[in-house]
Amino acid sequence: MEHILNYLRTHRRQHLAQLFELTRFPSVSTAAEHVEDVARCARFLADHLQSLGLTRVEVMPTPGHPIVYAEWLEASNAPTILIYGHYDVQPPEPLELWNSPPFEPQIREGEIYARGIADDKGQFFAYVKAMEAYFTEKGALPINVKLLIEGEEEIGSENLHAFVQEHRALLNADAILLSDTSMFAPGLPTICYGTRGLVHCQIDLETAATDLHSGAFGGFAPNPIHILAEMIAALKDKDGRITIPDFYEDVAELTPKEQAQFAALPYDEEALKREIGMEEFIGETGFSTLEKRWARPALDVNGILGGFTGTGTKTVIPAKAMAKFTIRLVPYQDPEKVFNAAKAYLEQLAPAAAKVSVTGGVGGSAYLTPLEHPILPLIAKALQQAYHQEPVFTRTGGTIGVLSTFSEALHLPIIMVGMAQPNDNAHAPNEHLTEELFYQGAEAAAYLLHELKTWKPA
Amino acid sequence: MEHILNYLRTHRRQHLAQLFELTRFPSVSTAAEHVEDVARCARFLADHLQSLGLTRVEVMPTPGHPIVYAEWLEASNAPTILIYGHYDVQPPEPLELWNSPPFEPQIREGEIYARGIADDKGQFFAYVKAMEAYFTEKGALPINVKLLIEGEEEIGSENLHAFVQEHRALLNADAILLSDTSMFAPGLPTICYGTRGLVHCQIDLETAATDLHSGAFGGFAPNPIHILAEMIAALKDKDGRITIPDFYEDVAELTPKEQAQFAALPYDEEALKREIGMEEFIGETGFSTLEKRWARPALDVNGILGGFTGTGTKTVIPAKAMAKFTIRLVPYQDPEKVFNAAKAYLEQLAPAAAKVSVTGGVGGSAYLTPLEHPILPLIAKALQQAYHQEPVFTRTGGTIGVLSTFSEALHLPIIMVGMAQPNDNAHAPNEHLTEELFYQGAEAAAYLLHELKTWKPA
Repeated sequence: MEHILNYLRTHRRQHLAQLFELTRFPSVSTAAEHVEDVARCARFLADHLQSLGLTRVEVMPTPGHPIVYAEWLEASNAPTILIYGHYDVQPPEPLELWNSPPFEPQIREGEIYARGIADDKGQFFAYVKAMEAYFTEKGALPINVKLLIEGEEEIGSENLHAFVQEHRALLNADAILLSDTSMFAPGLPTICYGTRGLVHCQIDLETAATDLHSGAFGGFAPNPIHILAEMIAALKDKDGRITIPDFYEDVAELTPKEQAQFAALPYDEEALKREIGMEEFIGETGFSTLEKRWARPALDVNGILGGFTGTGTKTVIPAKAMAKFTIRLVPYQDPEKVFNAAKAYLEQLAPAAAKVSVTGGVGGSAYLTPLEHPILPLIAKALQQAYHQEPVFTRTGGTIGVLSTFSEALHLPIIMVGMAQPNDNAHAPNEHLTEELFYQGAEAAAYLLHELKTWKPA
Repeated sequence: MEHILNYLRTHRRQHLAQLFELTRFPSVSTAAEHVEDVARCARFLADHLQSLGLTRVEVMPTPGHPIVYAEWLEASNAPTILIYGHYDVQPPEPLELWNSPPFEPQIREGEIYARGIADDKGQFFAYVKAMEAYFTEKGALPINVKLLIEGEEEIGSENLHAFVQEHRALLNADAILLSDTSMFAPGLPTICYGTRGLVHCQIDLETAATDLHSGAFGGFAPNPIHILAEMIAALKDKDGRITIPDFYEDVAELTPKEQAQFAALPYDEEALKREIGMEEFIGETGFSTLEKRWARPALDVNGILGGFTGTGTKTVIPAKAMAKFTIRLVPYQDPEKVFNAAKAYLEQLAPAAAKVSVTGGVGGSAYLTPLEHPILPLIAKALQQAYHQEPVFTRTGGTIGVLSTFSEALHLPIIMVGMAQPNDNAHAPNEHLTEELFYQGAEAAAYLLHELKTWKPA
């Protein structure tokens, strides 16, 4: 490990420059105007992997954005680990809230600011740099590695499921390592064993063929914004519980052990509030914030639009209104079932005065790794060496659709090792990653490759 | 009258061309980018009035858009009538719903389509053409006329109040004639004796310093769209009544005579629904549609905006949300009092988790003319001759702020004579005015000038 660590430490400047190059691609997967940028980013990555010594490097097409695949399988008597990452990013809007342009990475006070720097370019790239160190210093990796970097994570990994089903043989491995989560506290090594699932919906309401004058029609014409507001208000009760019928039927309750583990984590709720400028937290009665965050479902309207929203006033009753929302699911809720129940409930909530359309679908199932899996002590040992601290075990409130995809298709254990600090503004303006954590991430990846060599999969 | 009517009938083509020229100005008073267009429209009007023979034509500045004033006061022993109109128009958005460009007037199947054609350019211009006929044919008007065409009606006549207060002597008259309302049915002469008032509000909510990831924060972070939806839903009870405390305290109840008059009007509710593509009407329990439209208050959200509203999904908890709404008032509600009550109520409805800002103000008081005023039979006689039908007496659901302004400053009776057909899409895409009604309007204006000659104000 001495040579490997030394290589990584003496090449930090070059590795940072390469990471900057990677984050300059505006690989926004949800935006039609960025299709070419996403493709260019994939090509750049593949060329880079090829240059390091990985074999079978391919930009593999999907009906959407391409997947970058690479492998190195020359370690005999060693396990094979599938490493997953994604090179696509969230849209950067609203642009006016960024302090520096989202696709021009900039370091300020030890933090790298760029869209996608933490989610997920700065994380999977740490593995790439660890592999570079092994190839350069040893001419080989300690274990067999398959690398899959997709381009559609931020739009629900739409085509990954079919891709993984189709390429089961290619992707088969002993376990999956994934760094797309955050550390629980800055610098605190964190092993994440569960995610929430995702369902996304859009409600479109229409009450008239045309916008109407609020003087001539106010008082008797149905207003789609009022109807939408009432529907949104009706989606939760006063205890913060989601009112979709049978919604909580399949929700796995927390075990007392997990509740105790959550409660023991170093968590400063007041500091979190200050950091995000929030007065108070709300939500489901009877659960702690961490329980609500990781192990309870949630429903959030992500956007709403209707009528006149410009400067000044317009005395109009609009004909249409729209809202988008997402539901976060926990084990063992079935996303398809939840979406159908939400759609049926919303259609029933809408009054006869409105035409309602509910569209959307499944973004991913919730996932849980058994806490007693034998790979976990090896992961913990690797992280302990890289960060000089005992790692903690957490879940995440986010959704990584790929977990259920891999779980269903390959039946492999999946372990998430977060290399980004919490509150990195992923999905918000001014996304950032601590520069030092990028270097530590590469060392952690190197230790992981080293420690997993001793694993004997059953 | 023979010569006057003949002149109007032989000059229809020219008058229509002039009206087209007038509606080509995008005189959108609410939009900063149209300030110059508004000014150019005022100048065009003034030049036109000057050319007809009106005296003291002036484009009079205000702190906002200018007022066009003109007069002719050489009829001795005749009353003086102040004629009011407005040359500003509503914003044309959403543009994609127009079948022809809003500022390029076009006739299709007997209807002129253009923003402002009915509200109000095509109406006040009918008086201008009647005066032109008198000046050309007789060299004089039958009565004294003061003409005031303002440029801020669609933004609540913000500067008119101070202007009228300042120019009380200039504007003094015996009565005010105003055509900015609609006929009750196409071609049915209509004398309107009451309007609703207007209060406008904007709610701005902020729950965090930045947008947040709905995976990491969903379940405990307050969502400003949910809060806004709950606030909007709470503004009305299940009987459709507005819940602002003491809101109905000063509302004048309808008299049995008015209720009977309303009920006797030729009104086809199903036809109205079909026309605007609406499934059903809603509103306050216990009132007919016409009562709700003219004599009951109403609250409508005009626009709402928050979070991500583009194509695709964005799993975000936004930091901010905004809604604009208007309240229509009836006699004798005090707009200032209602705005303050609404603001206090909304501030109280907002939870501690949200910073709330409620801005807005008064758009105008409701107005009522005594039904027994002696000028009314003369107006009715003029309209009867122009349209060959007995006129009906109605109110309007809209707000013409100038009525309370004139009423307070000049203490004059105000009579509204609608020259546009109902459902003209004023304030909506595809605003239109029946071509024939523009010509009839000019003849009605000519008869009004003629009949009012016999009036002896007390």
